[in-house]
Amino acid sequence: MGSLHEECGVFGIFRQAHADVAHDIYYGLTALQHRGQEAAGIAVCDTMGERGNICLHKNMGLVSEVFNEETLAGMKGNVGIGHVRYSTSGGSVTENVQPLSYHYLKGTLAIVHNGNIVNAGRLKEEMMKEGEVFRATSDTEVIAMRIARMRAHTSCIEEAVKEVTKELLGGYALLVMSPRKLVAIRDPLGLKPLCIGKITDGYVLASESCALSAVDAEFVRDVKPGEIITIRNGKLFTDETLCNNTLCNGSQAHCVFEYIYFARLDSVLDGISVYSARFQAGRMLAESGPVEADLVTGVPESGLTAAAGFADASGIPFMHAFHKNSYVGRTFIKPTQQERQTGVHMKLNVITEVVKGKRIVLIDDSIVRGTTIANLITMLRKAGASAVHVRISSPPFLYPCYYGTDVPDSTQLIAKQFSIEEIRKKIGADSLAYLRIEDLKKTTPDLPVCSACFDGKYPTETYDAK
Amino acid sequence: MGSLHEECGVFGIFRQAHADVAHDIYYGLTALQHRGQEAAGIAVCDTMGERGNICLHKNMGLVSEVFNEETLAGMKGNVGIGHVRYSTSGGSVTENVQPLSYHYLKGTLAIVHNGNIVNAGRLKEEMMKEGEVFRATSDTEVIAMRIARMRAHTSCIEEAVKEVTKELLGGYALLVMSPRKLVAIRDPLGLKPLCIGKITDGYVLASESCALSAVDAEFVRDVKPGEIITIRNGKLFTDETLCNNTLCNGSQAHCVFEYIYFARLDSVLDGISVYSARFQAGRMLAESGPVEADLVTGVPESGLTAAAGFADASGIPFMHAFHKNSYVGRTFIKPTQQERQTGVHMKLNVITEVVKGKRIVLIDDSIVRGTTIANLITMLRKAGASAVHVRISSPPFLYPCYYGTDVPDSTQLIAKQFSIEEIRKKIGADSLAYLRIEDLKKTTPDLPVCSACFDGKYPTETYDAK
Amino acid sequence: MGSLHEECGVFGIFRQAHADVAHDIYYGLTALQHRGQEAAGIAVCDTMGERGNICLHKNMGLVSEVFNEETLAGMKGNVGIGHVRYSTSGGSVTENVQPLSYHYLKGTLAIVHNGNIVNAGRLKEEMMKEGEVFRATSDTEVIAMRIARMRAHTSCIEEAVKEVTKELLGGYALLVMSPRKLVAIRDPLGLKPLCIGKITDGYVLASESCALSAVDAEFVRDVKPGEIITIRNGKLFTDETLCNNTLCNGSQAHCVFEYIYFARLDSVLDGISVYSARFQAGRMLAESGPVEADLVTGVPESGLTAAAGFADASGIPFMHAFHKNSYVGRTFIKPTQQERQTGVHMKLNVITEVVKGKRIVLIDDSIVRGTTIANLITMLRKAGASAVHVRISSPPFLYPCYYGTDVPDSTQLIAKQFSIEEIRKKIGADSLAYLRIEDLKKTTPDLPVCSACFDGKYPTETYDAK
Amino acid sequence: MGSLHEECGVFGIFRQAHADVAHDIYYGLTALQHRGQEAAGIAVCDTMGERGNICLHKNMGLVSEVFNEETLAGMKGNVGIGHVRYSTSGGSVTENVQPLSYHYLKGTLAIVHNGNIVNAGRLKEEMMKEGEVFRATSDTEVIAMRIARMRAHTSCIEEAVKEVTKELLGGYALLVMSPRKLVAIRDPLGLKPLCIGKITDGYVLASESCALSAVDAEFVRDVKPGEIITIRNGKLFTDETLCNNTLCNGSQAHCVFEYIYFARLDSVLDGISVYSARFQAGRMLAESGPVEADLVTGVPESGLTAAAGFADASGIPFMHAFHKNSYVGRTFIKPTQQERQTGVHMKLNVITEVVKGKRIVLIDDSIVRGTTIANLITMLRKAGASAVHVRISSPPFLYPCYYGTDVPDSTQLIAKQFSIEEIRKKIGADSLAYLRIEDLKKTTPDLPVCSACFDGKYPTETYDAK
Repeated sequence: MGSLHEECGVFGIFRQAHADVAHDIYYGLTALQHRGQEAAGIAVCDTMGERGNICLHKNMGLVSEVFNEETLAGMKGNVGIGHVRYSTSGGSVTENVQPLSYHYLKGTLAIVHNGNIVNAGRLKEEMMKEGEVFRATSDTEVIAMRIARMRAHTSCIEEAVKEVTKELLGGYALLVMSPRKLVAIRDPLGLKPLCIGKITDGYVLASESCALSAVDAEFVRDVKPGEIITIRNGKLFTDETLCNNTLCNGSQAHCVFEYIYFARLDSVLDGISVYSARFQAGRMLAESGPVEADLVTGVPESGLTAAAGFADASGIPFMHAFHKNSYVGRTFIKPTQQERQTGVHMKLNVITEVVKGKRIVLIDDSIVRGTTIANLITMLRKAGASAVHVRISSPPFLYPCYYGTDVPDSTQLIAKQFSIEEIRKKIGADSLAYLRIEDLKKTTPDLPVCSACFDGKYPTETYDAK
Repeated sequence: MGSLHEECGVFGIFRQAHADVAHDIYYGLTALQHRGQEAAGIAVCDTMGERGNICLHKNMGLVSEVFNEETLAGMKGNVGIGHVRYSTSGGSVTENVQPLSYHYLKGTLAIVHNGNIVNAGRLKEEMMKEGEVFRATSDTEVIAMRIARMRAHTSCIEEAVKEVTKELLGGYALLVMSPRKLVAIRDPLGLKPLCIGKITDGYVLASESCALSAVDAEFVRDVKPGEIITIRNGKLFTDETLCNNTLCNGSQAHCVFEYIYFARLDSVLDGISVYSARFQAGRMLAESGPVEADLVTGVPESGLTAAAGFADASGIPFMHAFHKNSYVGRTFIKPTQQERQTGVHMKLNVITEVVKGKRIVLIDDSIVRGTTIANLITMLRKAGASAVHVRISSPPFLYPCYYGTDVPDSTQLIAKQFSIEEIRKKIGADSLAYLRIEDLKKTTPDLPVCSACFDGKYPTETYDAK
Repeated sequence: MGSLHEECGVFGIFRQAHADVAHDIYYGLTALQHRGQEAAGIAVCDTMGERGNICLHKNMGLVSEVFNEETLAGMKGNVGIGHVRYSTSGGSVTENVQPLSYHYLKGTLAIVHNGNIVNAGRLKEEMMKEGEVFRATSDTEVIAMRIARMRAHTSCIEEAVKEVTKELLGGYALLVMSPRKLVAIRDPLGLKPLCIGKITDGYVLASESCALSAVDAEFVRDVKPGEIITIRNGKLFTDETLCNNTLCNGSQAHCVFEYIYFARLDSVLDGISVYSARFQAGRMLAESGPVEADLVTGVPESGLTAAAGFADASGIPFMHAFHKNSYVGRTFIKPTQQERQTGVHMKLNVITEVVKGKRIVLIDDSIVRGTTIANLITMLRKAGASAVHVRISSPPFLYPCYYGTDVPDSTQLIAKQFSIEEIRKKIGADSLAYLRIEDLKKTTPDLPVCSACFDGKYPTETYDAK
Repeated sequence: MGSLHEECGVFGIFRQAHADVAHDIYYGLTALQHRGQEAAGIAVCDTMGERGNICLHKNMGLVSEVFNEETLAGMKGNVGIGHVRYSTSGGSVTENVQPLSYHYLKGTLAIVHNGNIVNAGRLKEEMMKEGEVFRATSDTEVIAMRIARMRAHTSCIEEAVKEVTKELLGGYALLVMSPRKLVAIRDPLGLKPLCIGKITDGYVLASESCALSAVDAEFVRDVKPGEIITIRNGKLFTDETLCNNTLCNGSQAHCVFEYIYFARLDSVLDGISVYSARFQAGRMLAESGPVEADLVTGVPESGLTAAAGFADASGIPFMHAFHKNSYVGRTFIKPTQQERQTGVHMKLNVITEVVKGKRIVLIDDSIVRGTTIANLITMLRKAGASAVHVRISSPPFLYPCYYGTDVPDSTQLIAKQFSIEEIRKKIGADSLAYLRIEDLKKTTPDLPVCSACFDGKYPTETYDAK
């Protein structure tokens, strides 16, 4: 798949007895790299040193491109936050790369943010009317500025964070580094994931649990929706006052797309394993969209786990039908379209032996524009597949996301433009079925989810935010 | 696994009506990148232009690092050869990067080579005694020099190639580009793979069939062991005189490790699909080393297909138990050993949900030093696996390869030093079984293979070559 | 010399009929590169397009490193500003790289600044007390924030600039780009240079006149101290209200070090050619510090022009005694100190033929630590010079600069620690003389200068600013 | 000027007691970088270690681009040779980058070469007829192959070198590194320069004396034309047998262009200082082409020294009229021709103050195509020069060089196409005079020179070599 993008991953760490957290953050961000590949940044600070002297390094590129041993070695501190970013809107790209850092009366403040605040535009407009000046175009700066402003009226940074988040509507996992503390907050709806890990001399906060093992941290628990975590002197304090934030009536709405596509297979979010959610989706597809076939396969990597689930439920054996060339990366020179279809073959190639003469169930997590799946079906048929039945482990994508997922314009969403039967014809499948919304919800049992992208039921006012 | 390395992949193309084969070779080499990641090179020539004006570009690095659009655009020609290389021995690294190109009385000659000539040292010594001077330290230059010397006494380049190969002992897939022709030869034993593809205006020659789809070429057939292929004016000519080369008594000995590890899953070599050979190996392991377990998994990517075969034969379900982080690449800053075990977690992480409380069959293609598998077993147990049974889809690796595989010193081969039971203890497995040699041979039915690395039965004199 | 650094160069352009000013700014900044080599940036905007959509690109490095053809091609706009920077203090390096850009109620605002505001710390403290939040640590942001804040209370951007600059004390050449205008202001003392150039369809503003020829602009005149220039619709408007700013009692104090060292030889600042100022300094040195010698030479490049002047006044012939190796650049691997003195020889080497047996007058623009000149004298003696008389074309450097020149700590200023006779001995010269302050002033006739670094007479309150 | 290029610089070093000559060579090559900027390479060897194990690193680019600290640190050896190269003809660029290294019966041999062998083509043809095979297209390989072949018939490497050089016709400064020795030979005509330096524990050989100071070596003397130097065990041996080589009748013909343009100003070649030769050329121009003027200036850097000489002889004062921007380097984005003349201004800019209203004598070392000088004259006039008299410190360039200087095709040589008066008009000068050949010879008194590029009198048969 690959046309939907999570916009960020965040990682924070506080170590009481170790001044080299930059390397830790480097490993943590590498484990979260799938959440954003366009920019990366790290800010560290020494809580025992000069008040709030932030060391910040960030740039466009992958974590491994932005940082080298020399850069990391130069960043000394026992507390720090890091960020990987997918894309930025607005012309001033560089200014939006996170962490953002600020200087104000109370010292310094650095911030990273995954998510989107739907009323950020309104808040920003208000602040502008009052004369506020912004450098970034992102909603992250709106939050940071409000926190810094609020700080004058509160006794500590975590109180300022609390007051500000009372006004925020949307999805957010925020890490704020002040001269002495690391503060985290997760939106009261629980739209964006954030979890806590324990290391010998402190704590780790990360978008996904997979980043904890990167620093040998032990998973403690998820941050509760609306909970404010403060780490000071290596100890963790919690404030659950906002957990029943009236802005959202105490309800929760965890982003279901984290399970379908965004999160890493080995992460567990809010008690539910990403792997099992996908596996279950595959199982339910087998029940709601059964088909006679010789084998089940998935589009690597996004469709493999649901394919395994489909196989498990249907009794049709799972097989790898494609080989993925991991050397076709970002610097690969793409073939010109006029010449030939080489591009598709380069990245994924069919294993003829597996598919020849077979009726195939092909699973992917979603169809955005439909071009990739159409090409794969053509390849399978050319390799001798006698039938290709497509099963999609999520419902048709119909509505925009206002909480931080970068989706194509709705004119490009095939499901918005065509009926399922029309899509089937367009992509050349023998049959096509999507996961039913009611089944989707069963993949994350007992967890209230936001599935607005499928059903248009937004858990907050949306303000037509982008 | 990852400690055994194929030393090369070769790709050649002759197009009668198209002067931009450099791009084709770029795609072909990218599809063969798994056969060598340390250096890459392309040489092209215009058969209709000035006699033998070779345009050559090569350097250390991946194909995508060595070439960019500008470089490729500057390489004009309708015939060309390319090479990916794993490693070079000797101090003069750059001089050994292929293609090698030569100027002599008959014009020019460029050559690429996958394999190793066991009597190259002797031939080189002889030639040196006669006064010959070498620039590279590789056996490839020995071959090239002999061909060029021989050319004076033959009517055409293919005859010179034939005469020279009569003396060569070992494994080789050779491509020779002369001003007007592309000549290929495969060693009479068939140790090294080489196949033929057809494009509209010419032919392609490649180490593996997977490289044919990269240029939309249709698979024609494998080059026969000992066969000399000549492409001239876009037409293909064959000479099978050496197919029963007396040097090897007409016998064949296809490298079995191509099927176990080297070749790409979607390639078909000498009529046998790599996928099915690995799948069969897994099936046979299930028969020879049965075990009660809840799930079968494989070490990504090398053990996945055998694991699927084991699952198929045993009825124990196949599951992905590891997530592989594709962002942990060559520039990743590795954690220092003293600090922690982060490195293992970074590249592969266990999907706890899958393994918790489960008895697991873990499949890999081989054990070289034993450290990686030991780490993975530790990770599985930590994630709650109640038992870990290791099955290896090849026999114990006991003997050096003299035909072009770069293997560790035998003092580092765990199977050379310890009994299977000792290895089991060292890696911490509940049980350990290897594929039996007799079963290995069944994975490539009717194909005479070289399995010298397992049984020490070398198909040629070895001369203690390295 | 090379231990004193100007901190910045600015360049702005407004073209009514051309949307590719990014290239112009690239050329302009390249001509100003001597004013700052650590970072560079360009911001452009389309005055006829969407309101204030700034396109900004900046990074650490030389102009030619930060920008390539692709980057420039992507920056469309008919108005723009650029900046080269020497160094940044504070930990958050990246955030200080200019242009800085801001979003606020009135649209956008981008700013570049050469100079230093001595009361910036006080202004910042005040603003912080009122709750203001900063991202950069530089005084540039203080100015920008104040302008943006002020803009709410004024009818146009130039009025806001005017109101803000009324409070600023120090040296500054500021360019402010608003959605429709390019505004420039020079500090009322004229400490920092800024001039106006005319191109067919608009105007150029640059730190030095040498940058005008880079874009084929014709020199119009210098911006007057305290003058505010506004370019709108390709037309230039001026406001001289602040030219007699009461903050400095209408007096002027042009930085004399621009003439001695900073500015490019081919620039004319405030009507005085840098070349002639240096030539005159050399002439006066010949009068105040005469000596019998066979030839006059200068340390390349900084001392060459004064040497020519000394030669002219003394009648002693000028000769090039050193060859400068232009390949010893930033990536050159410096020899370790323990091993040998290679470093000195690498960059500058004596032309033995010129100096052998000769009594030499060696001119440089200043002595900071004294190590370089000592090495050069040693080299000259080793090459056979019979006497080396050092003449410095500026007075001894004794006081810190508060207006934007990055000078070493006073503990490192040799003239602060030692008498002239002691310095002479330390550097090993036969005689040593500095330019007298009264003579220095004659090098810029009729121009009131700031020579605080020599005499400690600061033209403003200094507040111990850094 | 800048359109004539020397093709190479060589540097060799033998240290008895130090295993890190790679750094030394790095410094030496940096000092010789002006002799070639397209490729660089170093080969080192340990004379006390394994027999002839060469460590070689080379690539396209400047010395500082090809080598970094890590590369150098990995090159261990007490003897080594290095090379900087200007350009390569032929398609196989990489294969020609030096040092070239070879393996043969007697061990190894590495070679670097500055110059051109006019009968290399004939020798190569002969060798090819005998079956020899070449990898490079350069004449350097022809020499190397002959030496290696010859070595079988001689008792030591220096004898082989001697035998081979007996057959070579042309200009060459050759360094040959064998497992135990460093051998140097200079062509019997002395066309190419080569000198000897002494360091505490060994010797240095370099194209120019300026490279000696880069490693703190003391100048010993020039290698005599035809002399063979052998360094073994840190001691220097000489063989002058070929000094009166019959191939050139014992005559000498030192390349006069080394003095005019190629060599560095601070070098002394064959007893004559490059500086003084250029200074003398300027003096003689003043006598042969006197003119009334207000000042003399030179095109930086090539014309400055002759300008000083002209000033000295004529009494007209020397002034710097141009500022050269050292930041306009290889990665500078050049302005498109259509747009404007910015390119000229970027690199060199007139110092108006100096030239306004003045009659100027403008000196350069040569005119190749005439475009640059024409642009400079336009700039001078635009800046107010009332007259521009051009004086060229060499005679008109009329004949190709067969000894290693890369000159434009004669159709591009302005002096070949037009009379002096026509050239004067084309470049827009008020008067134009060249140095007379008889005067040129006076600039290198008592030194027999090759001035074939001016008078067509080649000191050897030329064979229409290229």
